[in-house]
Amino acid sequence: MISQNKPPVWYEQLKVCKQSGARLGIVHTPHGSFETPCFMPVGTQATVKGLSPEEVRSTGARIILSNTYHLWMRPGSEIIRRAGGLHKFMNWDGAILTDSGGFQVFSLSDLRNITEEGVGFKSHIDGSKHVLTPEKSINVQNDLGSDIVMAFDECTPYPADENYALRSLERTTRWLERCIKEHSRPKDQALFGIIQGSTYAKLRKQSTREITAFDLPGYAIGGLSVGEPAQLMNAMLEEVTPLMPEDKPRYLMGVGSPDFLIEGSIRGIDMFDCVLPTRIGRNGTVFTNNGKLIVRDAKYADDFTPLDPECSCPVCRNYTRAYIRHLIKAGEMFGLRLTSYHNVWYLMAHMEKIRDAIREDRLGDFRDEFYSRAGSFRR
Amino acid sequence: MISQNKPPVWYEQLKVCKQSGARLGIVHTPHGSFETPCFMPVGTQATVKGLSPEEVRSTGARIILSNTYHLWMRPGSEIIRRAGGLHKFMNWDGAILTDSGGFQVFSLSDLRNITEEGVGFKSHIDGSKHVLTPEKSINVQNDLGSDIVMAFDECTPYPADENYALRSLERTTRWLERCIKEHSRPKDQALFGIIQGSTYAKLRKQSTREITAFDLPGYAIGGLSVGEPAQLMNAMLEEVTPLMPEDKPRYLMGVGSPDFLIEGSIRGIDMFDCVLPTRIGRNGTVFTNNGKLIVRDAKYADDFTPLDPECSCPVCRNYTRAYIRHLIKAGEMFGLRLTSYHNVWYLMAHMEKIRDAIREDRLGDFRDEFYSRAGSFRR
Repeated sequence: MISQNKPPVWYEQLKVCKQSGARLGIVHTPHGSFETPCFMPVGTQATVKGLSPEEVRSTGARIILSNTYHLWMRPGSEIIRRAGGLHKFMNWDGAILTDSGGFQVFSLSDLRNITEEGVGFKSHIDGSKHVLTPEKSINVQNDLGSDIVMAFDECTPYPADENYALRSLERTTRWLERCIKEHSRPKDQALFGIIQGSTYAKLRKQSTREITAFDLPGYAIGGLSVGEPAQLMNAMLEEVTPLMPEDKPRYLMGVGSPDFLIEGSIRGIDMFDCVLPTRIGRNGTVFTNNGKLIVRDAKYADDFTPLDPECSCPVCRNYTRAYIRHLIKAGEMFGLRLTSYHNVWYLMAHMEKIRDAIREDRLGDFRDEFYSRAGSFRR
Repeated sequence: MISQNKPPVWYEQLKVCKQSGARLGIVHTPHGSFETPCFMPVGTQATVKGLSPEEVRSTGARIILSNTYHLWMRPGSEIIRRAGGLHKFMNWDGAILTDSGGFQVFSLSDLRNITEEGVGFKSHIDGSKHVLTPEKSINVQNDLGSDIVMAFDECTPYPADENYALRSLERTTRWLERCIKEHSRPKDQALFGIIQGSTYAKLRKQSTREITAFDLPGYAIGGLSVGEPAQLMNAMLEEVTPLMPEDKPRYLMGVGSPDFLIEGSIRGIDMFDCVLPTRIGRNGTVFTNNGKLIVRDAKYADDFTPLDPECSCPVCRNYTRAYIRHLIKAGEMFGLRLTSYHNVWYLMAHMEKIRDAIREDRLGDFRDEFYSRAGSFRR
């Protein structure tokens, strides 16, 4: 920032892992600070599915993600603004990042129609017609009052031909300019730009140069983890992160599998988000230090051990696989609370291990140990 | 008890309300004591729907009810026995009362066939055939290890003709004898007998005499709150409770609406249970000091007040009607947690007010005040 004042969100680097190049840092926001690399649980509709804000906080989470598209459609950003903003509405006093709604209008709505102006779409709730533009996305996020506001981008699908990917990333750059112009609360909400470019190294570099040319408090990498092979994602990260400013947080959107959290950290990413822990939890699948475990399976009917005997979370201290399986088979809500909580806790503990490994210059070793034990997380 | 030793569950009377005749007391169990009159939240399938055991405890509940039928069908009482009993299985260290499964085989299963031996039925889960007998019900409850075991009775439906009701109550008495004989853990599990007799004063008195002739640690009144008019229920209670021993707890089965909790207390009842608070909570309806409130209603979309401004529960301290309505409309589990929690808290607070009114000899006044404010609770 040219200004003498710190932006509302800023990055403090603590060290770089000598073995892997991963960054250890702290991101400061108007609603508290958090160590990075960090994972952000997703609270799409102003709630992390199944969990109370107190429970989310007790897992160690200090920032969550919520969704512009969903909250705009229901209950409407006007209601949340009048409630005193999203933090107050949902009783979460930690930091909040809101995505722009771009990804959702592409993935959830019918009959979308992309123009330079924005995206016309039909609501997934009632079929009503709407247009989401860069300006509208920022207006909604200004109403929500999130600490980190994401620019409205076009999330290029995978696969995309190079010509489409080029037009798409250039539009994302023009839309970012409109977002910056529209943003009415730059002093208490930090706008992050989003790098696109699909799986083309040349385009990723072009987008990184264009987006980071805007002096913003942070930058995200979008359009990855959308179905491309892992190697391709890693290759793209290796093109992009070296070109990103070192003094700003870097956010890789939509990544939450334990292996990718390590791979992303090694390539210089600071922030991640994904619905994975709560989504698989609701399906009766949990993370453990030995890989995934499907607790619904019949073999756990009389297994009186915890979900993960190495885990120190309250679920693993108090409940058995047999009980949790019973709850899920019986359709009891509490079963999904327990699996969701454990999974979020697991990822928080996983990030803590990643940060400890960076602190001790051994994240490469940590990766190797992780793959040898929990190999089943590999795609 | 003839024995010098106290039974596993025993009643200590503190006082009788001079204005209403209601009893204030304490019931002692192997898993702690609780003041009466009390309400027991229902955890049908080894979980009070939507709530954690810690949350249930934080509402003030010290005893919950669970179901022999459901737990026998799934996960099976053998699994719970091997888990170390129901308390350990579900992580609840307070008292547990289990019903006998009688009510459930009548109300949930298809093709039931009642004989002197027991009830043949098909499981509501997979249609498999089973026979529930007094012996089997007690065996299952001995496996579960509940503090209070209910006798296997025939819950006479309403309406029933007098002849059927007579045969039914006499069978219930014979079944009680078999339950007592089968009960293998009388030192740490208290068996309660159940009074039947439908809506016939003469039969209710006969059943009360027959059931209380067995020296048991407590007695319940069944076959009420099954669709009969409120006046008829009150009239039956007035026939029955004067004949019940004063030194044993009295449990009115299946009653949980706030008005009936007052009416039952006035007629000498000590314990109540009902699925009402969690069931209506899951439908988006909550108790308040001014009557029921359907928080799903559109008029609460921008209502930023608590569910009940007079309530001091954590839900009312931290969340608004607008937020809870949003969660319910969006199909979010957390909304049902919040309404369920508030409703259980409300009934616990309601029972505390009833106990305070007994302590101060003004339960009759309390009833009048209650009806004048929360009239909509009347049937």
